[in-house]
Amino acid sequence: MEKVRVALGERSYDIRIGSGMLREIGEGIRDFGFSRIGLVSNPTVYGLYGDAVLASLKKVCSSVDVIIIPDGEEYKDFLWLHYIQSELLKCRLDRSSALVALGGGVIGDITGFAASTYMRGISFVQVPTTLLAQVDSSVGGKTGINHPLGKNMIGTFYQPRLVWADADTLASLPHRQVLAGIAEVIKYGVIWDEEFFRFLEDQKDKVLGLDRDVMEFLIKRSCEIKAEVVSRDEREGGLRAILNYGHTVGHAIETATGYTEYLHGEAVAIGMHCEARLAGLLGYLDVKDAERIRFLIDSYGLPTAMPRGIPTDSVIAPMMRDKKAVAGELKFILPEKIGRVKIIGIADTEKIVESLGLC
Amino acid sequence: MEKVRVALGERSYDIRIGSGMLREIGEGIRDFGFSRIGLVSNPTVYGLYGDAVLASLKKVCSSVDVIIIPDGEEYKDFLWLHYIQSELLKCRLDRSSALVALGGGVIGDITGFAASTYMRGISFVQVPTTLLAQVDSSVGGKTGINHPLGKNMIGTFYQPRLVWADADTLASLPHRQVLAGIAEVIKYGVIWDEEFFRFLEDQKDKVLGLDRDVMEFLIKRSCEIKAEVVSRDEREGGLRAILNYGHTVGHAIETATGYTEYLHGEAVAIGMHCEARLAGLLGYLDVKDAERIRFLIDSYGLPTAMPRGIPTDSVIAPMMRDKKAVAGELKFILPEKIGRVKIIGIADTEKIVESLGLC
Repeated sequence: MEKVRVALGERSYDIRIGSGMLREIGEGIRDFGFSRIGLVSNPTVYGLYGDAVLASLKKVCSSVDVIIIPDGEEYKDFLWLHYIQSELLKCRLDRSSALVALGGGVIGDITGFAASTYMRGISFVQVPTTLLAQVDSSVGGKTGINHPLGKNMIGTFYQPRLVWADADTLASLPHRQVLAGIAEVIKYGVIWDEEFFRFLEDQKDKVLGLDRDVMEFLIKRSCEIKAEVVSRDEREGGLRAILNYGHTVGHAIETATGYTEYLHGEAVAIGMHCEARLAGLLGYLDVKDAERIRFLIDSYGLPTAMPRGIPTDSVIAPMMRDKKAVAGELKFILPEKIGRVKIIGIADTEKIVESLGLC
Repeated sequence: MEKVRVALGERSYDIRIGSGMLREIGEGIRDFGFSRIGLVSNPTVYGLYGDAVLASLKKVCSSVDVIIIPDGEEYKDFLWLHYIQSELLKCRLDRSSALVALGGGVIGDITGFAASTYMRGISFVQVPTTLLAQVDSSVGGKTGINHPLGKNMIGTFYQPRLVWADADTLASLPHRQVLAGIAEVIKYGVIWDEEFFRFLEDQKDKVLGLDRDVMEFLIKRSCEIKAEVVSRDEREGGLRAILNYGHTVGHAIETATGYTEYLHGEAVAIGMHCEARLAGLLGYLDVKDAERIRFLIDSYGLPTAMPRGIPTDSVIAPMMRDKKAVAGELKFILPEKIGRVKIIGIADTEKIVESLGLC
């Protein structure tokens, strides 16, 4: 089993990565001595892994209650948060209890938010079962729910006590979901590590074939990069913004298309391509490097083209409402070369429109 | 203007205490440079002080939006939290914006919770206008809302950037509300400072007459004690529990009577008396000291007798559900002498029942 440490002082925690380790989660949390556990999942994931996880947890904790919420981003809202909180009260979880989030990003985000606000904060453990959650959303302490007026607008920064990532769960994940996770993995290469970017170029077939060793390395390296960035900037004051490469445009595409057409990773893939183009237009990035980024995204079967039939205005507008926008200036993370990015504030939207037009 | 510093590292902040300073709140926050402000209040308080506060804030911030929620504990819930969040999004508050809470404990708690969860946390400023809020709820970073299954069950620990307490607002406060605040002030004497307890005995007439100098001192000394306790234990891991003297029984009385019969401070007054009696029964406290506590509470016109017609069971049951109860053991804060308390876990409820019977 591999280990990545997220160094955040008294809020530090381990990410454990391996294969076939879901059924050992009980051992992983034994030392915390939780009085009670609320296991939060959705019907799909719980149907696949619920029995194994529940049995393992019960070995180390006498009281484990299961809380199931529906499967889908549209349920990451106030109503289902309230439902989870009600169940926790009914099951009498107390301050030495913990929530375990078994699922993808939706389950992790809403469970983390519930844990951070239940009795002003109880422990929680992430057991991510999608690639996206394993390489991104389960690490770094962002929790939250959606609001009708904006995605992830309500939430907290709240660190888990442990992240338990089993690469074997990827075998049951739809291929499209695997690819959506790959988009964030490519992001780490662009923003931080050219060698890792090259690994993704060279090992494409093994990645797509879910080769166990390759996937474990890929998850570990992604977590290491994210952990390093988050350790230096827990609450998104500066450096952490670089994790949003591809996301300024990506989020806007998701909003403009009503979250129905693209998975988050797919929108980020288009966003990365657009923002590389924008970096090219502004003279920060060599056109050959922009092309190399586009080629890698494309070779994994991820989209790079802007959605047709969506007016540019409806992509620009949500950017202005993004929570990272400050006083009307849009923040972009633009590559200077593969492995290094720069944070650029852009008030003039003309170049942005032009780069969107090229994608 | 007096100043009390709450020392919490990078989350440190000042409490400013004075008379007639509401209209200078703008000066107080000028240096923070907030991009936008959401001013949250209720119709009663806003009717009295809204114009003065709004005018002062507008001197230092070009965008101030007013958000009014109904007056009353029953509105400190998910629905009104959601309403506040929606308004913040509509008014386009961003991460460099702030919420200002103008009102008592309800406004402070729900506004603090909204600030702590809006875009994963924006700044907030407490402008407490009740004695209870000035000496207790605005200091220490507890935020939250009620859940149908329990009071203050959902919330966060989240520190304000500034607390701005104007003793002049007490003149408009109903006398019963002033007394409810006095209960928490008496608490500080019992748990921390015998000299302050004696001050409350000696200066009773001036306190009840809202003498300006006496009230400023009383607020300042209360804040100093709370600040000292909170600085040593921000997240209620140990010492902070002593602030709950009178509250184990007090909360249970509030729950058993459906929150309609007693103000929080009144229930705490009865609770302090009961818990002093319990300390006497268990041999921790001299009976003369227990009597001195009862006499002071009583002399301020606060209740000390348990509500009639409420079965003891219905007072014990909510204690077991309290969020400070761990693994079925009830935590009590029992005085050993005036000015010093001890944290005691009690699993056997017999003595508790007996002490309730004496009150």
